[in-house]
Amino acid sequence: MISRKQFYTLAEPLKLWRGGSLYPVTIAYETWGELSPERDNVILVLHALTGDSHAAGKYSEDEDKCGWWDPLIGPGRAFDTNRYFVICSNVIGGCQGSTGPSSINPETGYPYAMDFPVITIQDMVAAQVELLKALGINKLLAVTGGSIGGMQAIEWVIRYPDWVENALIFGALPKTSPQSIGFNAVGRQAIMIDPEWKGGKYYPSPGPVAGLSVARMVGMITYQSYEGMWIRFGRKLATRPTTYSPLGEKFDVEGYLEYQGYKLTQRFDANSYLYLTRAMDLYDASEGFDSELEAYDRIRANILLVGISTDWLYPPHEVKAFANQLRDLGKNAVYEELDSIHGHDAFLKEWEQMTRIITLYMENLGDEAHYVTSPLGDGELIK
Amino acid sequence: MISRKQFYTLAEPLKLWRGGSLYPVTIAYETWGELSPERDNVILVLHALTGDSHAAGKYSEDEDKCGWWDPLIGPGRAFDTNRYFVICSNVIGGCQGSTGPSSINPETGYPYAMDFPVITIQDMVAAQVELLKALGINKLLAVTGGSIGGMQAIEWVIRYPDWVENALIFGALPKTSPQSIGFNAVGRQAIMIDPEWKGGKYYPSPGPVAGLSVARMVGMITYQSYEGMWIRFGRKLATRPTTYSPLGEKFDVEGYLEYQGYKLTQRFDANSYLYLTRAMDLYDASEGFDSELEAYDRIRANILLVGISTDWLYPPHEVKAFANQLRDLGKNAVYEELDSIHGHDAFLKEWEQMTRIITLYMENLGDEAHYVTSPLGDGELIK
Repeated sequence: MISRKQFYTLAEPLKLWRGGSLYPVTIAYETWGELSPERDNVILVLHALTGDSHAAGKYSEDEDKCGWWDPLIGPGRAFDTNRYFVICSNVIGGCQGSTGPSSINPETGYPYAMDFPVITIQDMVAAQVELLKALGINKLLAVTGGSIGGMQAIEWVIRYPDWVENALIFGALPKTSPQSIGFNAVGRQAIMIDPEWKGGKYYPSPGPVAGLSVARMVGMITYQSYEGMWIRFGRKLATRPTTYSPLGEKFDVEGYLEYQGYKLTQRFDANSYLYLTRAMDLYDASEGFDSELEAYDRIRANILLVGISTDWLYPPHEVKAFANQLRDLGKNAVYEELDSIHGHDAFLKEWEQMTRIITLYMENLGDEAHYVTSPLGDGELIK
Repeated sequence: MISRKQFYTLAEPLKLWRGGSLYPVTIAYETWGELSPERDNVILVLHALTGDSHAAGKYSEDEDKCGWWDPLIGPGRAFDTNRYFVICSNVIGGCQGSTGPSSINPETGYPYAMDFPVITIQDMVAAQVELLKALGINKLLAVTGGSIGGMQAIEWVIRYPDWVENALIFGALPKTSPQSIGFNAVGRQAIMIDPEWKGGKYYPSPGPVAGLSVARMVGMITYQSYEGMWIRFGRKLATRPTTYSPLGEKFDVEGYLEYQGYKLTQRFDANSYLYLTRAMDLYDASEGFDSELEAYDRIRANILLVGISTDWLYPPHEVKAFANQLRDLGKNAVYEELDSIHGHDAFLKEWEQMTRIITLYMENLGDEAHYVTSPLGDGELIK
């Protein structure tokens, strides 16, 4: 499946959740499948922290790698592009085609760097609303995503209840925990202590690659599990070439983390990392409402919440508790659990389970019976 | 209780586990209570990563702060100094009086920095053996410690079975997990990317304080729990003054972590942080034996293993599994669990539970009946 990155520039300035506005705003996006004449078959896919609009397919036949959710999106796949029109856009604040801190500030002619405004999950979703309107869409059959993508899905169902009919949310919660904020703070500090960061004004040089690499290393640990890392790395020594070590031979897990850190620096802007982790920290779905109850009670979509058995960043019992909270409010919420050793990252790895869960849910859209009869957390949707 | 830091310099070079030797080796230590004429009342206390010999008491009356295990060590306390002679020494490789990378290399007249040899848990314990011999001691009523201190206790009971009668081990395992190695690697990278690190040759300047601070930040998150951080910090905004933030108001948890990071830099040497985390990574109690079984089967001490309910760095089920493994080998091993929201750090915070567990264990030393009748992990020792 060949995919093509497209761009849309908003006609008006985007008003920002924390005040001020951003202009111009360009959004990079990709689509798969065909929009139905009734425009009622749209699935909006929302990417995670360092993801992009390239959720499926390849940009050219000779590419090795497909998009990050490719096994789930395509003809005959869980999000079946023979039936659905699937859209994925890059978040604003990012660096994969949408406007972010590395974009040119029209007031200065130079990249924004830290003059870029603080961006929130609310703003990311507001930009998506504008993109969809421009595409002639005002209804989403489903929104879906994991991690910070799942947070955007939560924002969608609360802030735009008239838009969304169904939401499939993986490894996400309506507010970021202080532990996550702490890990994000570590990553940001690592970037900002790198002398190449230069207060953010490092463009066009690659900037704080060492700092961003450390930020990615800590992130990668939090996306995995204690058990999974034992199985994958154990206490094996590194075999791949590693950076300078004054402390003797390195462990395989160190070499892996350093390599992952390096890899991110080849495709990601450090300032975007600062802004996007901050957006994550700031997210509390009930912000602007009198209470969580008032916020959650706005939801009209059917919601599938999927926890991951070994996710300690978004613990499954918390995801389940959120599902229960929604059910207590009379909402149509189902909890499912991915049984995985992969930790938080499981929604990007457990293709069989993901396919089973999504397919079953998508096949039964509109058939409400199976939602209410599905026991919470038994790992099986009952039709 | 007034405590006094003392120093002992080994007469001979210390042969090192990974080859080579170190000379001279000075060990800082403190003692409380009186050595019995039979020299049979010695308790060796082993400190955690950034700890020191100052486990109890104050250096002077007008000090506010006591040693790090003060509530557990003293007249009438769990480790009752009216009965026991308690010793705590600073590990080699450290920076609180014992020889480490900030010590003068006699070959150059300058601090060792990264010319300091790689130090292991085995070497720390070997140095302690020499200290004890010099004090005329060749028998330990008990060894005790948490975290990397607990790992030293494990090393003691395996490598020196004739020395140790009892071991009380908190939040520790016989080998370091790849997840822990990963977090340690993050901390080390943060230190080494700080331009003030200068390949380790920063003395006498304070060196990579920004990098060490980031290392401490990530450490401090791992010592706490998801739940505990929600209770302690929630999503409150920072009230204490924080460092520069280009991303708006900070969260309380960020301010706390930055403050903890800063505090460590005021008392700890960055190169020691590199060497001591490396010693932790390298530890596998079965190294040098044909198998775990051969290693563990050497143990003759009675062992109390204490897990912490919310410790995800040394998960309680793993500590319990280690206790079971020892019992399967016919060893006298008991598992207890601290019920705490404080995560790994609970052995430095849950004074009431710690006092109860230690007191009961110490009161019944030699009375073997209660060990074998204690069910595993029910949180109660049965006499």
